Amino acid sequence: MTQTLRLGIAGLGTVGASVLRMVARRAEALTAATGRTITVTAVSARDRSRDRGVDLSGLHWFDDPVALARSGEIDVFVELVGGSEGAAKAAVEAALGAGKHVVTANKALLAHHGAALARMAEERGVALAYEASVAGGIPVIKAIREGLAGNDISRVYGILNGTCNYILSRMEAEGLTFEACLKDAQALGYAEADPTFDVEGFDTAHKLAILTSLAYGVEIDAEGVSVEGISAIQPLDLTMADELGYRIKLLGVAQATDEGIEQRVHPTMVPKASAIAQVMGVTNAVTVDADAVGELTLIGPGAGGAATASAVVADIADVALGLVRPTFGQPVARLTAPRRVEMQRHEGGYYIRLTVHDRTGVAAGVATRMAEANISIESIVQRRSAKAASSDPQGLSGQPVPLVLITYAATEGNVREALAAIGRDGLLAEAPQLIRIERE
Amino acid sequence: MTQTLRLGIAGLGTVGASVLRMVARRAEALTAATGRTITVTAVSARDRSRDRGVDLSGLHWFDDPVALARSGEIDVFVELVGGSEGAAKAAVEAALGAGKHVVTANKALLAHHGAALARMAEERGVALAYEASVAGGIPVIKAIREGLAGNDISRVYGILNGTCNYILSRMEAEGLTFEACLKDAQALGYAEADPTFDVEGFDTAHKLAILTSLAYGVEIDAEGVSVEGISAIQPLDLTMADELGYRIKLLGVAQATDEGIEQRVHPTMVPKASAIAQVMGVTNAVTVDADAVGELTLIGPGAGGAATASAVVADIADVALGLVRPTFGQPVARLTAPRRVEMQRHEGGYYIRLTVHDRTGVAAGVATRMAEANISIESIVQRRSAKAASSDPQGLSGQPVPLVLITYAATEGNVREALAAIGRDGLLAEAPQLIRIERE
Repeated sequence: MTQTLRLGIAGLGTVGASVLRMVARRAEALTAATGRTITVTAVSARDRSRDRGVDLSGLHWFDDPVALARSGEIDVFVELVGGSEGAAKAAVEAALGAGKHVVTANKALLAHHGAALARMAEERGVALAYEASVAGGIPVIKAIREGLAGNDISRVYGILNGTCNYILSRMEAEGLTFEACLKDAQALGYAEADPTFDVEGFDTAHKLAILTSLAYGVEIDAEGVSVEGISAIQPLDLTMADELGYRIKLLGVAQATDEGIEQRVHPTMVPKASAIAQVMGVTNAVTVDADAVGELTLIGPGAGGAATASAVVADIADVALGLVRPTFGQPVARLTAPRRVEMQRHEGGYYIRLTVHDRTGVAAGVATRMAEANISIESIVQRRSAKAASSDPQGLSGQPVPLVLITYAATEGNVREALAAIGRDGLLAEAPQLIRIERE
Repeated sequence: MTQTLRLGIAGLGTVGASVLRMVARRAEALTAATGRTITVTAVSARDRSRDRGVDLSGLHWFDDPVALARSGEIDVFVELVGGSEGAAKAAVEAALGAGKHVVTANKALLAHHGAALARMAEERGVALAYEASVAGGIPVIKAIREGLAGNDISRVYGILNGTCNYILSRMEAEGLTFEACLKDAQALGYAEADPTFDVEGFDTAHKLAILTSLAYGVEIDAEGVSVEGISAIQPLDLTMADELGYRIKLLGVAQATDEGIEQRVHPTMVPKASAIAQVMGVTNAVTVDADAVGELTLIGPGAGGAATASAVVADIADVALGLVRPTFGQPVARLTAPRRVEMQRHEGGYYIRLTVHDRTGVAAGVATRMAEANISIESIVQRRSAKAASSDPQGLSGQPVPLVLITYAATEGNVREALAAIGRDGLLAEAPQLIRIERE
C-alpha cells in the first residue's frame, strides 16, 4: 500500500458531497489519527454537469461506477449509489473482486447480499465497512462489534427511521393525523414522494437485519423480519398511550428467545420515562441489552448528509489504519443460519384498542374472551364521548366507542385468537388496533 | 507476536475477577473476532489467599505487579490496581518500557500522567488503551476517537459519576437530604467510607480531563478543571428545579470557546425533556456536540465489575487485532497545551436561590442589582410558606424566605458581582445557592 490512501467515491448526492468536503476539511486530523494522507482521487455519478457545491477539478471522473471500482487509481471504493441491485451491487462486487476496500452506506445492499459480499471481502483480505448503513451518524456498528466484544447480547432495539419518528412525534405533539404529518414530512424532504419504504417499516427492517447479524453472529435474514408500519396509527392511539404512560415509536427489535431470534418491526408502546421515549423528530436511537453492560443506549442523527458522511469517514479512517475486521464481527463461515421465530410465538404486553358498540355487557364480553385465551388484563379504559354520555346516558344506542385494554405478557397467537372470538361475538364496530408494548 | 495473546492482570478486585471470567467465557467469540486465542497467563494481587470466585490455578502468580508487567510471559499488561501513583504507575511504566501493550481502567493515572505514558507507548509502538477509565461500560472513548473521526467537537458533557447521580436521583425522588442519601449510598456500596473524591466532583474531573484531551487534541490538564461537588445541594433546590422544568445532575462539561477550553464540573440544571435528564441512579451518560453529527448521546452503566470488565475486554480485543492507535487520537507531539478559561468568563444561564428577609421591596432590590450587572432574568419565584403567609400576611416579620431566579445567559463574573452587591445591601439571610444551567 502507498502511504496515501486513495478514495474513489461513487454517488455524489448530499452524502457524497459531504464526504468530499469532510475529507478535505479534516485532512490534517485524519492524517494525525491514522498516519496516512487520505485523499479522494476519483468520483463517479450520473450527471457530470450538476453543481454540487464541491470542487471536482483534479478528480478523475468515471461515468461508470464499476469502472471506478476496478480502477488502479483507488485503494478504497466508497459506495453511495444506493439500491440493493444494479450499479451499486455490480460496483461493490467489482471493487472487492479487485482487492479494494469498500465503505458503503447501503443498507439494502447489505440486507440482501451482506453475507456473500462479506465472503468476498474475507477472501481478498479487505474491509467491507458499513457504519453509515444503520442509524446514520450514530457509531452503532462500532459499539456493538467492538465496544461490546465481551458481551452476550440478548436484545437490540431502536428507532431506526427518522421519517416515521418525525411523523409520530408530530402526531403526538399536535394531535394530527398520519396523513397530515406525512404530507409535511414530504414537504420538508424527510419523506419520499412514495413513502411506502419508510412508513411501512421496510427501511427499518433492513437496518434491523444488519444489527441482528452483528449482535447474534447469524447470517443476515431480511426476509425473516416481521414488518408492520405506522400508517394505521390514529391520533386516538397516541392520546391513549399518553394517558397510560407510554409513547408510540416505530421500533425494530431483535431478541434472542429460547426458540430462536425474533426480528420484528412494528409500532411500539414504550414507557414515557425510558430514554428511547425522549427521542423525537428525525433522531434515531439504539438500545442494546447485554449481559455485562446491562443496557446501553445511543442516540443521535439517523440521516442527513453530514451525519451520514461522519460515519463514512469514520470507516475510512479505520481502513487507513490498516484495520480489517471480519465484516459481521466474525468470519462468514462461522455465521449460522438464524432460527426464525413466528410472530404468533412472540410474548409481550399488548395495547388493544377495540371499537365496540356501546351496549351493556360489552366490556364483560370482551373480558371473558380474553380470559378464555389466558390473557391477563393490566388495565382497561372505556371512554364515552361527552356527547354520547349526555344524549344517551344509559348507553342504549349501541354507538361505536373505544375500549382500550393493556395486557400483561401474552403470546401474540393467544391475543389474535381472543380478538377473533370477540369479532365473532359481534362486539366490534371496526377492526381492532393492536400495538405491542416493549419494556426496558 | 505469537498467535496466542497472553494477558497479565494486576489487581483482582471485582473488575479483575470479571475480566478473568469474561475472557474465559467469551474465548471462542473473541478468537472469531480477532483471529487470535486470548488467554490470561499471569496475575498479581495483594492477597493470594483470598477467594475471588475464580479459578487461578495454572496462572503464574506475581506478588509484585511491576515484576508481572515486565514478565516475558505476557503480551498485554492489564492494570486494575488503581491510584495515580505508586504500584499502578510503576507497573504501567515498566510494561510500556518492556514493549508490552497496556490496558487500564485507571482514570487517575491517566489524568495525571496520560501524556507521558502515551509518549512511552508511542516510542515502543504499543497500545495504551483506557476505555474502562471513563463511564465504565459505555464505549465512549471509541465513539469519540474513532466514531467521530470526521467531526470537529464543540462540547462534551456528561454524568460521569454514578455515586453522585444516585444521590441526586434519590434526593429528587424522595425529597431526602444529601446526607441521608449519601448514607444509603455507602450502605449499598455505591459510595466509599470517605466519599469526598466522588461527591466533591474530583472523580468526574479526572474523567472529564481524559475526554477533553481526546475531543480537542490537547494535553490532559486535570488541574485546569474547575470543580464543584454536590454536597451543598438541598432538597429545596430539587423541588424548585422540578417546578421550573429542570433536573439537577452533576455534569462534567468541556466546551470550546473563543478564549480556550472550559473544563468544569458542577451541579447543573438540565431541561427535564433532555435525554441526559432521564438518566437516573448509578447510570452514566455522555453527550457530544459535533459539527457533522450534531448531538450524540451514549447512556449506560458507569461502574460495576462486569460493565467495567466489558470495556477492558473490548480494549483487549482491539489489541488482539494488532491495532495500535495514537493514545489520544493523534501523536503526543501534536497535542497542544490547552488554553484554560477561568470560570469567571463562563457564560450561561444560572439558577440562583437566595434566602432573603421577607420584607417589602426585597425582590425589587435584588432585581435592581441584577440589572446593574447586566443580567436578564428569565423567571423569578418567591415562595412564602403557608405558615408565614397566615401568621404574617403583610410580610412584615422579615422571616427568611427563598427567592429563586433563573437568568438568561450571563457571565459568571457578573453573576458573582451582583450577588456580592445583594449581600452588601443586607438582603440575604444565608449564602446564596448558585447552580449553572446547561442547555441542549
